[in-house]
Amino acid sequence: MPPGDSEARRSYDARARRARARDDRARTRSRIIEVARDAFLTDGYGATSLSAVAAGAGVSVQTIYLAVGSKGELLRQVVRDTVLAGEAVAAVSEASWVTELAVQTDPAVQIEILVRESVSLAARAYPIWRVVAEAATLDAALLPDLKELEDGRHRDQRALVGLLHGVAVPLDRAADIVHGILSPELWRLWGIERGWPREEVQAFAVDVLVHALHRPGLR
Amino acid sequence: MPPGDSEARRSYDARARRARARDDRARTRSRIIEVARDAFLTDGYGATSLSAVAAGAGVSVQTIYLAVGSKGELLRQVVRDTVLAGEAVAAVSEASWVTELAVQTDPAVQIEILVRESVSLAARAYPIWRVVAEAATLDAALLPDLKELEDGRHRDQRALVGLLHGVAVPLDRAADIVHGILSPELWRLWGIERGWPREEVQAFAVDVLVHALHRPGLR
Repeated sequence: MPPGDSEARRSYDARARRARARDDRARTRSRIIEVARDAFLTDGYGATSLSAVAAGAGVSVQTIYLAVGSKGELLRQVVRDTVLAGEAVAAVSEASWVTELAVQTDPAVQIEILVRESVSLAARAYPIWRVVAEAATLDAALLPDLKELEDGRHRDQRALVGLLHGVAVPLDRAADIVHGILSPELWRLWGIERGWPREEVQAFAVDVLVHALHRPGLR
Repeated sequence: MPPGDSEARRSYDARARRARARDDRARTRSRIIEVARDAFLTDGYGATSLSAVAAGAGVSVQTIYLAVGSKGELLRQVVRDTVLAGEAVAAVSEASWVTELAVQTDPAVQIEILVRESVSLAARAYPIWRVVAEAATLDAALLPDLKELEDGRHRDQRALVGLLHGVAVPLDRAADIVHGILSPELWRLWGIERGWPREEVQAFAVDVLVHALHRPGLR
């Protein structure tokens, strides 16, 4: 074998090894985050220990620190994965339903899409959002995360509201209205505490938003 | 002085002493609750100690236990006083504005009264409601209090909605709608986080509630 081939071979092997190592790291990371999510949701933030997460994921605590970071960082990653719902995108604005919303020309149907996806997100994210609120009570370092979660939600909604046709109120006010009516807080009150079926929460939110956003009037 | 007079005199003195002692106890109790409210709002539930409250009120910790009770009981009393806003009544249903609402015959004006008073209550009670939520995170024994605070709010609203004319949705659903739209959670989002002036929060809530409660339709 000429020296050139041998070099190419070694280089190929090295690339393959690096790719395998990268895949292993990604798998370990996913497993840690999944175990952490279950622990946070079952036991709360305060009662979840890194050693229990490590045991559940079959790794050492040191590996958790290297692969993800501190307990607060674990929570951040769990939240991020929950909000993006496993879509392989970096932000809500890149989700496939946003395209559906953007190309839709019927203003009422646009609001239906926005409500359907936002209520679905609120229902999915609500349990972990409670964990973040609890965590912020126990660890003031996580207060900015709670604020960022809310600010990010408002930014996303402002961008989405900008895609809506027929909105008769200023953009910022419209975003605030959507932010409130489609908040995890109202999902908790209506969908969880008062037990409205999800489709009734959605129908009510569509009706209120069509009224509040489309009607030219005092606002 | 005949013996009868002397007896009457002693009996009068004893009554007067008992009345003074009762007034003293009531004043001490008020002072303790006032100091506790300030401490809870400034430092949070976790960081407030009974010894600091005792020092602030000029009494012993033992006196706090005898006059009010545990730290959890102190918080309960602070909440109660805040919700009733110093009105000398035992329940919201006895507040003077409820009579105003009951005798009003214009359905839209009724909703304006309900919104005005509920937003005012939400703004007043919101800071201490946050303390209760924090306290329930730290002390599971207070979870039922948080739930009772919310259930009591729903009961009050259901009774108030029962006084409204022109409501086109079932009473329970109407109470749920009012419960959500006039919740402390939405007050926080709109009135505090997004900075809407209180009269704008009220105008928006009136508009939404008139639409959602009066319009016969899908709900």
